[in-house]
Parts: sequence; C-alpha cells; structure tokens
Amino acid sequence: MVDNPIRFGIIGCAEIAKKVSRAINLAPNSIIYAIGSRLIEKAKKFVRENGLSDTVNIYGSYEEVLGDPSVDAVYMPLPTSLHVQWAVMAAQKKKHLLLEKPTALSVADLNQILDACESNGVQFMDGTMWLHHPRTLKMKEMLYDPKLFGQIRLIHSTSTFAETQEFFENNIRVKPDLDALGALGDTGWYCIMAILWAVNYQLPKTVTALPAPTHNASGVILACGSSFQWGEEDTKIATFHCGFLSHVSMDLSIYGSNGSLHLKDFIIPYQENSASFDFTSGAKFAELHLGWNLKPTQVQVASELPQEALMVQEFATLVNSIRSSGSKPDRKWPEISRKTQLVLDAVMKSIEIGFKPVAL
Amino acid sequence: MVDNPIRFGIIGCAEIAKKVSRAINLAPNSIIYAIGSRLIEKAKKFVRENGLSDTVNIYGSYEEVLGDPSVDAVYMPLPTSLHVQWAVMAAQKKKHLLLEKPTALSVADLNQILDACESNGVQFMDGTMWLHHPRTLKMKEMLYDPKLFGQIRLIHSTSTFAETQEFFENNIRVKPDLDALGALGDTGWYCIMAILWAVNYQLPKTVTALPAPTHNASGVILACGSSFQWGEEDTKIATFHCGFLSHVSMDLSIYGSNGSLHLKDFIIPYQENSASFDFTSGAKFAELHLGWNLKPTQVQVASELPQEALMVQEFATLVNSIRSSGSKPDRKWPEISRKTQLVLDAVMKSIEIGFKPVAL
Repeated sequence: MVDNPIRFGIIGCAEIAKKVSRAINLAPNSIIYAIGSRLIEKAKKFVRENGLSDTVNIYGSYEEVLGDPSVDAVYMPLPTSLHVQWAVMAAQKKKHLLLEKPTALSVADLNQILDACESNGVQFMDGTMWLHHPRTLKMKEMLYDPKLFGQIRLIHSTSTFAETQEFFENNIRVKPDLDALGALGDTGWYCIMAILWAVNYQLPKTVTALPAPTHNASGVILACGSSFQWGEEDTKIATFHCGFLSHVSMDLSIYGSNGSLHLKDFIIPYQENSASFDFTSGAKFAELHLGWNLKPTQVQVASELPQEALMVQEFATLVNSIRSSGSKPDRKWPEISRKTQLVLDAVMKSIEIGFKPVAL
Repeated sequence: MVDNPIRFGIIGCAEIAKKVSRAINLAPNSIIYAIGSRLIEKAKKFVRENGLSDTVNIYGSYEEVLGDPSVDAVYMPLPTSLHVQWAVMAAQKKKHLLLEKPTALSVADLNQILDACESNGVQFMDGTMWLHHPRTLKMKEMLYDPKLFGQIRLIHSTSTFAETQEFFENNIRVKPDLDALGALGDTGWYCIMAILWAVNYQLPKTVTALPAPTHNASGVILACGSSFQWGEEDTKIATFHCGFLSHVSMDLSIYGSNGSLHLKDFIIPYQENSASFDFTSGAKFAELHLGWNLKPTQVQVASELPQEALMVQEFATLVNSIRSSGSKPDRKWPEISRKTQLVLDAVMKSIEIGFKPVAL
C-alpha cells in the first residue's frame, strides 16, 4: 500500500458495489473511506457482509459522503436515472468520479456530468472494467500490427445473459423510471464500447438498429442489436446484439484483411488470474481446400490483479497526480464514455424511428 | 466398393471439381465414369492432373456426357449463370443431379431445375458439404436438447476469405454475366443455409440487409450482410456477413436461452479426420461476478470419410434406391436448397431496395 492512498466514498449499495469495493481494497493506491446509503442500515449491512474495515465511515445519505472533506473520490453505482443529479453534485464538491455504466440516460445528461467534472478539475472514469485488463492491451497490440492483422473489415460483439422471472419483475434495469435504457444500457454498453475500442474510437458515420428488438410491457428494451457503418470510403462494418434473454455471452470477434481475433469472455474473463483470446493470421486453405494451413493460436495473458482492481488503480493514479502535482484530469476516459453514450443514443434513436440509419 | 456403384459424369473442370472428384473416388458407392469440358484438352488435363483412372470417358462437350446412357448422375460445377440450361437438360436426360452452389441466380431459375428433376424422377442435391459432416449431426442433437440449450435466441454466421487482385480481375465469381450473385452467392450461401439449418429450416418472416455492402465496378457484391426476423411472437433473430474482403472466417455462433454453440470452421473443418465445436450450457457468473462457473466444452467428432465424400455417399445412396428399387427422390435436399435460394433472393432484393425489410 502506498502512502496517502486515494480515499473512496461509495454512494449506493448495489450488487456491483461488492465487486468494486473488493477492487478498491485490492488496488495498492486506494482505500474505502466512507459508504453512504439512503438507509443507514443498508450501508451498515454492506460493511458487515463484505468484511470491510471498522474504520469505514458509514452514512445514512449520499450528501454526507459528498460533504466529507476527507473523501477524495466517489464510486457511484446508482440507478442510471439518478446519475446526473448526484454525479454533478459530486463534481461540485470536488470529488473525483468513478461512475457506473451506462453513464447517463442520454449524451446530453452525460455532457452535464462531464462539464461539471471539467470545470471542477476532477477526474472522470466510467466503470467499464475490461478495458483495464492486460489482455485488452495485448489484443490492441496484435490488432494494430498491420502485418499480422491488416485492415479491420468486420467487428461483431454480443453481451447477453438469461434472466429470471424475478429479475424481469423487480430489477431496476428493466424499470422505465430507473434504467430506461434497459438491456441496451446495461449490456449493449459493452458491445458499443468494444467496437469503438477496436477502431481506436473512430465514431461510425451511421448507426442502423436491427429490426425486431424485444421490449417489456413498460417499453424497456430486453434485447436489441445494431449495425454501424463508417462511410462510403471505408468498407468496415460492425454488428452487435445485447439482451437479457440469452444464455451468458460476451463475444468479441474482429475480422481483418489478414487476420482475425476472437474471444468469448471479453467483459468478465472466465478466470481472474489469466485470460486468453484466439488469434489467427495468414490462414489459408490447404491444397484442394481439404482443411486449413493453421488453426487459431490461443494467446494467454496473465493478470496479477483482477481487471476491476486495475481499473481502480488507474483511476487512483490519475487522481493522485491531480491531488499531488496539480496535473489536469486525463481527457481520454471521459471521451471514451462520451463516444459510447453518443453511439448508444443513436441506436436508441434508430430503434425509435423504425430502424432507419442515424447519422453521427 | 459396392457392386454397381453410381457412375458419375462431371460437367466442367472448375477448381472445386478436383475436390469432388476425389470425394467420388473416396465414397464407397460411386465412381467417376465420364468427364466433359467444352475443350476436350481441358478434360484430358483434368484426368491426368488429378490421377483419375484411364477408364474415365473423356468428352469435348457437356452434351456427350449427358447423352451417355451409362452415366447415372451428373456433378455440375459450372458458373451459376449456366445452371438452368444444363441442369434442366441433365434432368431431362434422366441424370440425377449434384449441383454446385449457389444453385441458381434466382429461386425462379432454381424452381425450373427442381421441376425438371421432379418430373423426370431424378434426385437433386446441392454441393454444400458441411451438412454431411457427423459434427453437424452432433451439433443438431445438442442444440435440440431443450435442457442443454433451451430456445434459440440469436444466430450469427460469417463466411469470408480475402482475395487477391488476380481474383478480383479474373475470377468468374465477380463477373456479372457468370456469377451475378458474387460473394452473396458464393460465401453467403453457407451462412444463410447454416442459419436455416439451426432453426430446422423454418423460413424467417422478414429479411433485412445490412447497410453498406461493397460492390465492384460491375455492380457485383464483394461483401454484404443481413439480418433475419421470425416475427412478432418469436424473439429469435439472425445476422450474417459474407465476402471476399476479409481473412478466412467460417464462424457459426448460436445462442440459446440456456446454452451456446460456437465453431470457427463450419464450412471446411480445420482437419479432415476430426472436427470440433464449443458448447456451453448453464454458464453463470461466479460469486461477485469474479469469473464464470464453467468454460465452454470442446466437443470433438471424428469422421472416417471427409465431409464431401459423405455428401457423395449420401447422394449415391439415394440414387441407388431410385435406380434399384424404384423409390421416389428424397424431397429433403431440394427443399433445403430452395429455401436457401429463397432467402438469398430476399437479401439481394433488400439490398436493391435500400436495406428495407423483404417479407417471405
């Protein structure tokens, strides 16, 4: 543990907060300093059940966490509809912000949050964990080796899990007043970001949703998909499918002119300490097309810390350099979130207007 | 070798004919009896270069093959634009017909061929090999085990290979007068059939092409994609991408409510004697979503004969039972071809009308 670790306040006791509080404790440069819930009993229970230190300050409101001058940064796993209000207030209180995804209900809302962060000089990062896995870096390195991979032609991603009746009746992620983006916000977020990641965050020119999404009775999306186009001169395209109706899938497949890359656990690796992806380069058919000259290679990448702890560590490192040397917040992370939200909005719009293309 | 093997006449000396002539020799119930090309020298060269028997009858025209009363069945690897003429003539000459895919330029053309086969009592089968691999049967078995897989929600398939400048300039598959369906006919055929196979050949209600296909200067498709919808009451959807612009890919991914199935070599297995697919059933996240409770299982399936020899064997078995016991041609195979061609036509139509849905 470093001297002066970043002191986190956690706002809200959602399921995902368990995983991230463990990550804050695992990261070498951060500690949990405070936790707040609208009901103090919930916060106490969270501390007890997750084996957090007795020294964690427990509050019965979000305001108290934000008002605690010893809190450096806030991790915010609230329902999406509450993000603008609390994230803006956190920034105004000079708290650095690690915000769960989807970051907002719309890019207009997210812009309010990002403006507040920028004008208050605080770091923003969303809670997408897989971007911080060393596997992700290794994939990028091989993807952008022109000899190995060539030019990107096609990207396909899925993010699904099959939910229970209880989830469909009660979970906030299917409630129009809490998480109106439904499966698109929750699981589609990952697909959209993965596609943008693969193309170095070059925004598509148009987004065209796929027909036949599934909605619940309140109009919240339970499953949907989209295609992305980059324009006349650029033949690459992307498709994704997300939802709460299929067995767990986290597929990312990238096809280039000279190689392909596949993995089936890009969001949450099968195991914590090591993860892999399949890479093929220069595959051809054997004579008479009786087989292939080679099979995909499994590239294994070890990870000393889980990806969520690496996320916290990266965030805390940026916060620390602002705190200790007065540097500016890193603009890369808010920009990635903003582009993801922009594309997500376009998918939603395309669904609303009958699967017509939406220009970005 | 059985007594009275089915005697094949091969019409045309395309590259693919090398692989299929080897398959006819490998199958225990068929032999190559004759080969015809418009130039007899080409046919002679083919016999010489592929080590075929001296007893093979060599003809300098297609008519002579069809006119030889000892020929039971014809394998026809001609450019697609020539199929109607020669396939109909073959049927009229009472030759059973193994026809290369794509079967025709349109379902109207294919119907002419199928009508001719039916009225002349000859067996029809198209040259799609992977349907005959024992892996395909094993996949179907696991896919239709409701406990293992549940209901199908999503199917995604790709069929691509990256072509050379020489191909783009000279290959018949990019010439509007020879193979006007381009990559959609050549590689998309496999994706469409794989999707139909997965749903037991239940036709989609609508087909909606994906925006931004790539055409060459003559208007022939070099890469494209589509989505399929099965209607209001049925949430399953499918997408595919095909083309000549990406590194080799032959992906088939099927996602159910309780399982998923993946393979990356569905059209041509990596190796001849054994092939595999990945199957996952009942995967869940580990506690705190720190990983998965299980990884996909690799299901390995051995094959004593290559899939193309199994295709020939199946075809020859059907021909033999018509020849020896007067049974009717099997209607399953022409029906699979017809449905594939019907959907292929719909994708083409959807592209032509600006990626709007085409009802089937």
